[in-house]
Amino acid sequence: MSGTVEELEAGNEAPLSEEGSSVRISPELELPTEEDLLLAAAYVYDAQYNRNIPFETSPQAIRFYYLYNHWSMQIATYFFIFLDLSLALFEEPAVYPLPFLATSLVEVLCLCTFFGRLVQFAKVTSRTVFWKDTKNICILLTILLTLLDIIIYGTLRVFNIHSVRWSRCLRPLFLINFPESRQIRRAFRSIRNTLPEVLYVFLLLIFNVLMFSLMALKLFGDRNLKTVEGASYFTNILDIMFDLYVLVTTANSPYVMMPAYNLDWRYSLFFITYIVINTYIFMSVFLAVVYNNYRKHLKNEIRKLAYMKRHKMIKAFNILKTQEGPEFVVKEAHWKHLVKMVAPDISNSHRELLLRISDEEQKGYVDKKCFLRLADLLNIQVITMKFKRHPLEIWMPHVYKSSGSLFIQKIVQHRVFVWIYDVIILINAVFIALDEKNPFISYAEWVFLTLYIIEILLKLYTYEPKTFFARNQFWNWFDTLIIIAALMATIANTAIKSAIEYNSQQILDIIFILRLLRLIRIVDSIQRFRVILTTLINIIPTMLTFGGLVLVVYYMFAIIGMELFKDKVQFFSESSTDTHALDCGNPALKDSTFARSRYCKNNFNDLASSFIVLMELTVVNQWHVIAGGFALVTHEATKLFFIAFHIVVVILIVNIFVAFILEAFFVEYSLEKSEIETTIEKKIQELGMGIQEEDVPDGQLIDNMETNENDLSGGEEMQKQSSKGLFFRIASKRYRTVDALLQRMFESEISPEDEGPSLDEILNLSPSDMYPKNPTFENSA
Amino acid sequence: MSGTVEELEAGNEAPLSEEGSSVRISPELELPTEEDLLLAAAYVYDAQYNRNIPFETSPQAIRFYYLYNHWSMQIATYFFIFLDLSLALFEEPAVYPLPFLATSLVEVLCLCTFFGRLVQFAKVTSRTVFWKDTKNICILLTILLTLLDIIIYGTLRVFNIHSVRWSRCLRPLFLINFPESRQIRRAFRSIRNTLPEVLYVFLLLIFNVLMFSLMALKLFGDRNLKTVEGASYFTNILDIMFDLYVLVTTANSPYVMMPAYNLDWRYSLFFITYIVINTYIFMSVFLAVVYNNYRKHLKNEIRKLAYMKRHKMIKAFNILKTQEGPEFVVKEAHWKHLVKMVAPDISNSHRELLLRISDEEQKGYVDKKCFLRLADLLNIQVITMKFKRHPLEIWMPHVYKSSGSLFIQKIVQHRVFVWIYDVIILINAVFIALDEKNPFISYAEWVFLTLYIIEILLKLYTYEPKTFFARNQFWNWFDTLIIIAALMATIANTAIKSAIEYNSQQILDIIFILRLLRLIRIVDSIQRFRVILTTLINIIPTMLTFGGLVLVVYYMFAIIGMELFKDKVQFFSESSTDTHALDCGNPALKDSTFARSRYCKNNFNDLASSFIVLMELTVVNQWHVIAGGFALVTHEATKLFFIAFHIVVVILIVNIFVAFILEAFFVEYSLEKSEIETTIEKKIQELGMGIQEEDVPDGQLIDNMETNENDLSGGEEMQKQSSKGLFFRIASKRYRTVDALLQRMFESEISPEDEGPSLDEILNLSPSDMYPKNPTFENSA
Repeated sequence: MSGTVEELEAGNEAPLSEEGSSVRISPELELPTEEDLLLAAAYVYDAQYNRNIPFETSPQAIRFYYLYNHWSMQIATYFFIFLDLSLALFEEPAVYPLPFLATSLVEVLCLCTFFGRLVQFAKVTSRTVFWKDTKNICILLTILLTLLDIIIYGTLRVFNIHSVRWSRCLRPLFLINFPESRQIRRAFRSIRNTLPEVLYVFLLLIFNVLMFSLMALKLFGDRNLKTVEGASYFTNILDIMFDLYVLVTTANSPYVMMPAYNLDWRYSLFFITYIVINTYIFMSVFLAVVYNNYRKHLKNEIRKLAYMKRHKMIKAFNILKTQEGPEFVVKEAHWKHLVKMVAPDISNSHRELLLRISDEEQKGYVDKKCFLRLADLLNIQVITMKFKRHPLEIWMPHVYKSSGSLFIQKIVQHRVFVWIYDVIILINAVFIALDEKNPFISYAEWVFLTLYIIEILLKLYTYEPKTFFARNQFWNWFDTLIIIAALMATIANTAIKSAIEYNSQQILDIIFILRLLRLIRIVDSIQRFRVILTTLINIIPTMLTFGGLVLVVYYMFAIIGMELFKDKVQFFSESSTDTHALDCGNPALKDSTFARSRYCKNNFNDLASSFIVLMELTVVNQWHVIAGGFALVTHEATKLFFIAFHIVVVILIVNIFVAFILEAFFVEYSLEKSEIETTIEKKIQELGMGIQEEDVPDGQLIDNMETNENDLSGGEEMQKQSSKGLFFRIASKRYRTVDALLQRMFESEISPEDEGPSLDEILNLSPSDMYPKNPTFENSA
Repeated sequence: MSGTVEELEAGNEAPLSEEGSSVRISPELELPTEEDLLLAAAYVYDAQYNRNIPFETSPQAIRFYYLYNHWSMQIATYFFIFLDLSLALFEEPAVYPLPFLATSLVEVLCLCTFFGRLVQFAKVTSRTVFWKDTKNICILLTILLTLLDIIIYGTLRVFNIHSVRWSRCLRPLFLINFPESRQIRRAFRSIRNTLPEVLYVFLLLIFNVLMFSLMALKLFGDRNLKTVEGASYFTNILDIMFDLYVLVTTANSPYVMMPAYNLDWRYSLFFITYIVINTYIFMSVFLAVVYNNYRKHLKNEIRKLAYMKRHKMIKAFNILKTQEGPEFVVKEAHWKHLVKMVAPDISNSHRELLLRISDEEQKGYVDKKCFLRLADLLNIQVITMKFKRHPLEIWMPHVYKSSGSLFIQKIVQHRVFVWIYDVIILINAVFIALDEKNPFISYAEWVFLTLYIIEILLKLYTYEPKTFFARNQFWNWFDTLIIIAALMATIANTAIKSAIEYNSQQILDIIFILRLLRLIRIVDSIQRFRVILTTLINIIPTMLTFGGLVLVVYYMFAIIGMELFKDKVQFFSESSTDTHALDCGNPALKDSTFARSRYCKNNFNDLASSFIVLMELTVVNQWHVIAGGFALVTHEATKLFFIAFHIVVVILIVNIFVAFILEAFFVEYSLEKSEIETTIEKKIQELGMGIQEEDVPDGQLIDNMETNENDLSGGEEMQKQSSKGLFFRIASKRYRTVDALLQRMFESEISPEDEGPSLDEILNLSPSDMYPKNPTFENSA
């Protein structure tokens, strides 16, 4: 055991000489050239990150490929995309108005960078591939159309003719079509694929609404009923259809039923039947159809990804392979060189570990099966742990190791320490709920702040600072940042107060929110809550995808909405004595539900307001009031705008979002370690360099949650083995995206020998190819 | 081929002699006695219907067992349960008041029948089993408590002391605890099992609400904001918590946000964050948790059922088995006798078919593997089709077979005939939408009615009436019944009108609804709609289970609600000039949103009103207004009643309902024929007595939908083979319940040799035993 560890460490100590030897390729081995290695590395890199960029194989293209994928380039692209989108804040109708010349110049600048990015991509890939890709053509077209629109609008503006900046609707296309946004594109594909089936259910729903509307017209039309507002009730078929469509969304229940119900209680049966069929059954069917399609297409996409990865790894293997007896293999030296090129930032010892896993019997080469796993191996986050002495121990070992100091360290490591601080947080919560006007309570806040600072200082005294602030120590970072921010804000507020005798409300609000955020920690110290929280944290990255999706749709609707409803409804502040304050500046709204509910600020007068109105429409409640208000100030037909928004956002996107959360939770529930992870862990254990989670003594938890990831967790253990000084741990399954989990699950189903279908076949895989002929109970239920 | 068919028919022709021989058991075969057969039949019967009644093995108990399971007994039980439940309609506060003596006498009668049913059950099962079953004890206790309550209440009533009839809350327990309601019990178990996990998510949600409430209090409490009604905004922490809890349900959006938003648009970010986290994410997490648990426990329950079935079939086999060479088998004669006892109403030819499947090689006995499948075989609906000549063909063959008559038949069978009637229905829909005051249009209605009647007569002329009205010809029945009803109602209306010059509005409404229902047929003639409709029809039986579940919960809440809020809110009709009409008869409601929205009829003054209010609360929208209204007339704390209702019904039951619909659709999507069905179909084909669906020529469809089930569908085919005169078809997968499908799917996973765990193990199976250690992609995603 110790022998193997030493070997490994020996490997660590001479990385330079080895690197040298693998770069200077000895000719008798019929070795791949440096260019071949570069190409193979590009394939592995592409496979590792699932980029799927069809790059050319020339060395120049590959160098461009690395440049193209560089993080700075990607960040720059996103920056310009969001800059372009945010222009709507400064253009008429603007939140912060800027002259047309300024915004159009910025827009042209954005278009130039988009074009530059496209040129860059064209250099990476071959001409035919470039022009075949509709994404590129779409971007080019959008650039051209936008330029055209700017020129036309600018010209007309010179002659003082008002026209519409229609190309602003197209801006989200940049966000969708750049290769970086493949997640958003996938979500859109998901929606597109779901459309046909949703359409049929929707038609059935509309048929139902029509049937019930006819029935309602005949049942209630002739009875001279009045609504609460005194309007005639259920007399016009179009109004009835709109009312009943709104009832499907439950937004006007029970309001819409009351006049009929007040007449005779039996009429309520009509509405109850309608709600049960349409709201409960049909809306669930929408979710079922959307979810089923989402799942089907998600699996298909992920299967494509997995096959593409396999495909690329085989290509890389074929470039590097040399014959060894009956089989083709990759020499250890090439393998190491390749890994160094693909992942230059992993440590030598980590690389040695991967080699040990890939070349289990230390034969000096990696066979095909093991080579194909390389991309996955690189993706698994292995934490290299070095036992570091506390700086204080190095500076003043005598004091730090004294019995008093050791006692303090023992207390801090004890679980009672965590409990005491949980209690302190709870007491703090009670104080927060109390009135802060009381001077005693505002002093108490200083006490709590001091207690929290002492906690952090004690922990820093006990644990090695670098490991305490390691990359994945989320809660340590969280605690410390909040405390520091609270401290600074409190000091700032005190300074201002003593200087100008004035409490800045903004700073007070910030302090208050920071104080509340501290309470979150208590949730995390209860096991059951932590499971839910972990899943929620894991799905944050994919939720950002939905954020992108929603942004695209909101943006388009907001631009259209601003063109339709700009300045039709005006807001007057509460204190305003303007007579128009009661009808939102528009006589058409006099006595309408919209004006009476004081919804005047729900308007499309600028981008921020539009987004907030659209958010309210997404929440659904009272959407008919908003739609009705805008229909009054323009035309009945504008209700179609709101219905379209409801269908796209509520029926499609929200359901896909729910489907995604369902899927994420199911994946989390059925989660196990992957086969590859198990292999790595076994190897780590074999080499005697692992830290078992079970070995961690309870008393040493900083807090329950962090232990799993925690470099400190094995404290004592490490002290015993400190002579070796180096340990590995696989990062636990927290903080992984659902996508990655799904992909891993599918990969475990492809046999290692399966080379997968050809590239064309992969690209044309359809979900129906995937299901086995006889589904078993497990996969169907 | 024809030989086997003749053999089978020979079997059909001598059923009596065979039956005689199997009843008189020849002693040399060491045969099971008649009592053994009775016991075995009871086991098979129990397995076939999944009754799971632990009956005694004595012949007397078995006879009681059959009596107990007789449909008339079950219907009687349900009748008395619903009678008992409906008593609330007649008791104070009553919809139709009856004296206390009358209702209490009826209740005592119901209690007696329940007790009788329990005694009957006690005779079927052994004493220990009876007393171990909590269901029985629960029923007994409920009977005793109810009697006690009646006596106390009656006695106090004599002395004019008012007390509460608290035992009315317990009535739904009868519905839950009788063995017939195992579906409802299963749904309740599902809820109970889900509770712990839901609880943790709920606590997290409440924590969240609390955090945001504190934040809201500090942010908005000191700003002197006013709501639209002029009340102070966000000043009391309890009110804020209620408002924010309501916001989770979206019921008060955007209303609750407007005062803050009107002050500064940035405050809307607070509400948007809150809605995204709580409404979108947390509500989806509730669905995910409920759905995941529902699925897990459903699988477990169904696995239990499948094992129980297997267990009982093995018991039956062990009773009947005789040794034949190395293995134990069941003799053909016993097998036939058994089937005749278990399913007395299946035809001889059907039984012969089952025997052929069970004893494939015609060895004269059925082996164990085939015997165990018997319960499933009996459950598969095999349609025996006899080619019947049209009665007209028999009475006047010359006329019926004349070229003119044949031409008419050909037209009716042609698909264009269907299309023409689809067009007629569409035109009818347009006429319905038009004003019926116009005399031309009311004449047109007569024309349409005539056309529909002609259609039915033509079809009856072409197709044999008995097959046209076969049991599963749903749409033929539907069409005919609607047309006849419409005809009768129209005639009745005309008669009344001509007699007393008065249109009865009730009859007109009925006619109108009947007319609309005709339009449904058009939906069914479009393939894509039919798939959705089929699934919806399939889930109706299980939806009734949810109906029962909702009934139980509604009933309990309604009884409590009536005790709490009875007569606190009064309804005055629209025309009433009473000054109290504006405050619902309660000064506390003056100027409240409740009264201004004219919600006075939403009250708990009788059972019907209570149910309607609870329905409105289930729909969620405006529930805070209703809750607020009742809090005003009683006490703030009664809001807890509404919050409890929301948690139980909306968070638990509605989510389970949605989970069920999702599951149903997924099962439908992944549906294939079961292995047993395939075996049966193969056998039918082998015997040359099948009708392949593909053989059916298009032109012969009555309508697209019905073809699959249709006896008429194979018209020409049958005429060719009419000499044999007898065909079998497996009923297609339409009209099957989701439960049955799920069970079948799980059974296909148990190997035929697997005898399953022991009875005790089966009863204690838990969901966690079920999952394989390494979930594959298919079952997890």
